[in-house]
Amino acid sequence: MSKFAVLGYGVVGSGVVELFYKNKEKIQKRAGDEMDVKYILDIRDFPDSPYKDKFVKTIDEIVNDPEIKAVAECMGGVEPAFTFSKKCLEKGISVSTSNKELVAAKGDILLALAKEHNCNYFFEASVGGAIPIIRPLHKCLAANDIDSVAGILNGTTNFILTKMINEGMKFDTALKLAQELGYAEKDPTADVEGHDACRKICIISSLVYGRHVYPDSVHTQGISDIKLEDVQIVNKWGGSIKLIAKVSELENGKILPLVMPMIVPFDNLISRVDDVFNAVLVSGNGIDKTLFYGRGAGKLPTASAVLGDVIDSVKHDRTVFSQSWESVSDNSFVEDWHNYKAPVYFRVDTDVTDTVKFVKEMCPENCELVDAPNGQLCFITPVVSLTEADSLKEKLESAGAKVVSLIPVLK
Amino acid sequence: MSKFAVLGYGVVGSGVVELFYKNKEKIQKRAGDEMDVKYILDIRDFPDSPYKDKFVKTIDEIVNDPEIKAVAECMGGVEPAFTFSKKCLEKGISVSTSNKELVAAKGDILLALAKEHNCNYFFEASVGGAIPIIRPLHKCLAANDIDSVAGILNGTTNFILTKMINEGMKFDTALKLAQELGYAEKDPTADVEGHDACRKICIISSLVYGRHVYPDSVHTQGISDIKLEDVQIVNKWGGSIKLIAKVSELENGKILPLVMPMIVPFDNLISRVDDVFNAVLVSGNGIDKTLFYGRGAGKLPTASAVLGDVIDSVKHDRTVFSQSWESVSDNSFVEDWHNYKAPVYFRVDTDVTDTVKFVKEMCPENCELVDAPNGQLCFITPVVSLTEADSLKEKLESAGAKVVSLIPVLK
Repeated sequence: MSKFAVLGYGVVGSGVVELFYKNKEKIQKRAGDEMDVKYILDIRDFPDSPYKDKFVKTIDEIVNDPEIKAVAECMGGVEPAFTFSKKCLEKGISVSTSNKELVAAKGDILLALAKEHNCNYFFEASVGGAIPIIRPLHKCLAANDIDSVAGILNGTTNFILTKMINEGMKFDTALKLAQELGYAEKDPTADVEGHDACRKICIISSLVYGRHVYPDSVHTQGISDIKLEDVQIVNKWGGSIKLIAKVSELENGKILPLVMPMIVPFDNLISRVDDVFNAVLVSGNGIDKTLFYGRGAGKLPTASAVLGDVIDSVKHDRTVFSQSWESVSDNSFVEDWHNYKAPVYFRVDTDVTDTVKFVKEMCPENCELVDAPNGQLCFITPVVSLTEADSLKEKLESAGAKVVSLIPVLK
Repeated sequence: MSKFAVLGYGVVGSGVVELFYKNKEKIQKRAGDEMDVKYILDIRDFPDSPYKDKFVKTIDEIVNDPEIKAVAECMGGVEPAFTFSKKCLEKGISVSTSNKELVAAKGDILLALAKEHNCNYFFEASVGGAIPIIRPLHKCLAANDIDSVAGILNGTTNFILTKMINEGMKFDTALKLAQELGYAEKDPTADVEGHDACRKICIISSLVYGRHVYPDSVHTQGISDIKLEDVQIVNKWGGSIKLIAKVSELENGKILPLVMPMIVPFDNLISRVDDVFNAVLVSGNGIDKTLFYGRGAGKLPTASAVLGDVIDSVKHDRTVFSQSWESVSDNSFVEDWHNYKAPVYFRVDTDVTDTVKFVKEMCPENCELVDAPNGQLCFITPVVSLTEADSLKEKLESAGAKVVSLIPVLK
């Protein structure tokens, strides 16, 4: 009999308990052992819960029980989740987490601790919700040199952008709807400004490139400045504006992680990922490209990922899967984001009448003109660095034009 | 130092060797140990190969070498691959295979043997080429009750259908082009008639539902009867015709695997999977739905999957991942495919002028009329069983109409 505990009885934690009892028979068959939830840790009281006898208020009750083989950490936030996770790992109890904030901040430390104590720190649920991405990256694609990982890692912003694209809704209206539907929080900053996607690309970057990437070394730009006009112009041109989290390995050996709204051309499946769904596209020298798609958040989808990890912990108790990465003291292996290279879309307010001539004189060769409303000029540059794009912006503005929008295109 | 052997130096086997040496440094870092290819088994001679000193002609040289920890079986076909794999597993040497024919025919036996001898039989490469699907199904989605798995599992037929859809090419012309490009073999039967997709859905069905499903218990229908007219009518209506391999669990507890051309509506991402790419959509009660997409065949993509398994074998030598399933003596747990239920598309030659009245009198309620050429009638029924669809066909034909096409719609 393998007993485990759930830390935190919020949306994800209660989902873990619900899904476990729903599928208990199949789960036990797959784990090769009887399993049960022995404790649920939460500071709140749940007197009406059918599991009310399982609730405890201190982590010590859990870590001092030798029957506990694994823990599902669904608390969110760095503390006290960090302290609690450390206590478990130090006792050789494997931890499976959905807590992206903690993994992005302290993953290196917790992974090293797990290895030292012959147990596992699993975090499949911390990126992409239900989508299997951590284990595939770590195991199935281990024979590849990974060039880049890019994707839609935040469902809330993708819901908002989908409403803007498909229904011509303005940003504020779409955000309000997302809040009404429970997709966005009252304070939507973490989602809308890209911090949530940033944590996730940090985790992926650390896993793939082997060194801890901290959120503050990743340029992060959200979608609150995205204008409906650009969404519509780009849609007519043949693409969708999506909040993209991306990391790539450069020729100089550095990596370049960033979170930005980007234009995704329709021939890339990511452009078709709508609503609250997430998708991750991995490029490598063996696989060419592989895409993973599914629900990036939500009670049962996230619980599914946490429980998959718990089952693996229980099944292979005492086997370290050692997906650790190095701690780092400086982030010089992270390239300055201004050196990110891509074609860049410009929308410019201008009273110039011969726009073809204007672009020819002012812009790099081979710019592609895009259909624009009267009094405006839209074009897409060839591949340039974001520094070069900024210089071009200055040049255009000093010639009297006003650059309203500047959005990179995902290659 | 972990040494491994490659069995078979064809497309996949030579890809495994090529990709290993290409990415050797990163692979060793991920394996946590130095690695090398010690032997390559092939009956042919390769006097000009840079690896000519590694070639051997008998399996005994490999299994009798205590340095060998793992084997990549890339031979194809049931024999002698089955005998060779058995010999390895009996010596506790883990086997990673790309051989779907062997896994579909003898997977149960080889998995049991691996378990017995404390090693692993891995087959990530046998389904979906580079796409991680076996390990995600087995591990990441282990907490789910899986309702169905459906996908495009054969790249050759998808290439042919894509040419028919996008370029209006006829089946025979597209097949010829696929042969010229090396996507289809001289004898294209295994691909075109669905046998290859059938083996793959057998492997997925066995893994997900825990009992060995043999190819001869799966209804398999290929694409050689697909007509360009239907491809075009369906495209205009809002979907693509794809060769779908699917398994679902029914309410009566039986499973229903089958391979058939189906209509995939555009709101399903699978309809956008073009060219030689594969995709697998998994539905479960935790995840809702998750999609995996990538190159389903080819030298390096398949090698990537085989090598990922080899790395896992080497890293966790002596740990059994026990993804075994039961051997079965009868297949009464497989439902008769005639009971498969779906909306069904009909194209009918008829001289009836009032088609609305004709459909109303002859067909089930709520049929959807589809734009059709003159002298023809196209409609999609509500959900019916394939037996009911056949009865409807008979009824229409006894009324003087000729049913030219009958294609289920993927829900």
